[in-house]
Amino acid sequence: MKIIAMDTSGLVASVAIIEDQTLIGEYNVQYKKTHSQTLLPMLDELKKMVELDLESVDAIALAAGPGSFTGLRIGSATAKGLCFAMDVPVIEIPTLVGLACNLYGTDKLVCPLMDARRDQVYTGIYEFVRKQGQSAGYGLSCLLAQCAVSIEEIASKCNELGREIIFLGDGAAVFETRLSELMKVPYGFAPAHMNRQRAAAFGFLALEYYREGKTVGADEHVPVYLRLSQAEREKRERL
Amino acid sequence: MKIIAMDTSGLVASVAIIEDQTLIGEYNVQYKKTHSQTLLPMLDELKKMVELDLESVDAIALAAGPGSFTGLRIGSATAKGLCFAMDVPVIEIPTLVGLACNLYGTDKLVCPLMDARRDQVYTGIYEFVRKQGQSAGYGLSCLLAQCAVSIEEIASKCNELGREIIFLGDGAAVFETRLSELMKVPYGFAPAHMNRQRAAAFGFLALEYYREGKTVGADEHVPVYLRLSQAEREKRERL
Repeated sequence: MKIIAMDTSGLVASVAIIEDQTLIGEYNVQYKKTHSQTLLPMLDELKKMVELDLESVDAIALAAGPGSFTGLRIGSATAKGLCFAMDVPVIEIPTLVGLACNLYGTDKLVCPLMDARRDQVYTGIYEFVRKQGQSAGYGLSCLLAQCAVSIEEIASKCNELGREIIFLGDGAAVFETRLSELMKVPYGFAPAHMNRQRAAAFGFLALEYYREGKTVGADEHVPVYLRLSQAEREKRERL
Repeated sequence: MKIIAMDTSGLVASVAIIEDQTLIGEYNVQYKKTHSQTLLPMLDELKKMVELDLESVDAIALAAGPGSFTGLRIGSATAKGLCFAMDVPVIEIPTLVGLACNLYGTDKLVCPLMDARRDQVYTGIYEFVRKQGQSAGYGLSCLLAQCAVSIEEIASKCNELGREIIFLGDGAAVFETRLSELMKVPYGFAPAHMNRQRAAAFGFLALEYYREGKTVGADEHVPVYLRLSQAEREKRERL
């Protein structure tokens, strides 16, 4: 079971190749290039490095949104193209779920924050719940499904839950000062090596999704924007 | 404050560039090539991708051992060469500490396991301790410093501590069945995206080490093997 995973939902461009319990390779970049400049060259580089035979790949997983509109479109277009050519399905992972999985197994609540501009964040609240059995691992329980809200609204929801919480994602740095004013429960921030999207985490989740039959055809896949694009919004306002 | 971090201590070849709280790039590969084939091409690729000016780099961090003897030597030789040329210090991170930091912030004990062959593992036991302050992060407390012991010995030490523990590292898969026989406390395994060395985690730690003045000159750096090499062992036996 081999999966290529990609993420272009935010500032990071990320690709990974995962085979069962082994992360064969991952390449993550957060730099001022557009995803159209980075994503395919990164995948090509990784493919060559690990001599990947595309015929051996079972599915393409990606961060399916929310996120940057242009970023999501680059990721989706790339995934669709590859899936058509390779005749494999797409595995759509909600961006916030993938991001939360950077902190797999923590006993704290997890609140990913992506700066959505216009005074909003894409966010959600997640908890890792131990499965039955001495070494059975964790399931991810969703306390607030991914949504676009103000930082005040998500801080208030976190405070209501009354438990220690960890923030991660590019929105955590953007709203750090505001959070220090708003938060009433103990909280922390994920460190640099765990605080941004990693295709490897999406790949890990994708193995589970695949086993559960959660795949779609390349023609069916559409990214989840959660909001109207700027162009659509302005059109509506004009009408 | 910008750091290049590298790890060649085990099966993974890994390079990362970290600047303060931002992971600018990381590239991790676990594939049947030797580190001499992968490390410098990976660093070169990453350097080009993020247009890194080597003049802007403050230090080179690396997994300083224990680990594969050949792997450690490739990493050390590369780090020394770069540090001499760039006139920057080396930051030596104990391999097991860097590996433990994949699970930064967990409330469970962390036990990295690297297959050391000859029925031993390189291992240690670590705990993340919350620092004072509402959002102050965690310090790493060492309950058992890195060492080379049998899987029975480390399992027994874990059981004595009487707390839930998470295993990670290439030794976790190798000794999974044996652990299921030996372990008396609840335990788990880190998932695929968190269970191997990542230079990004070493880079994160290196920022702290640098601030604390824990650097050495390129000429002073030596890897920590913890054991005699096979050649040295055989020589001793002959004499």
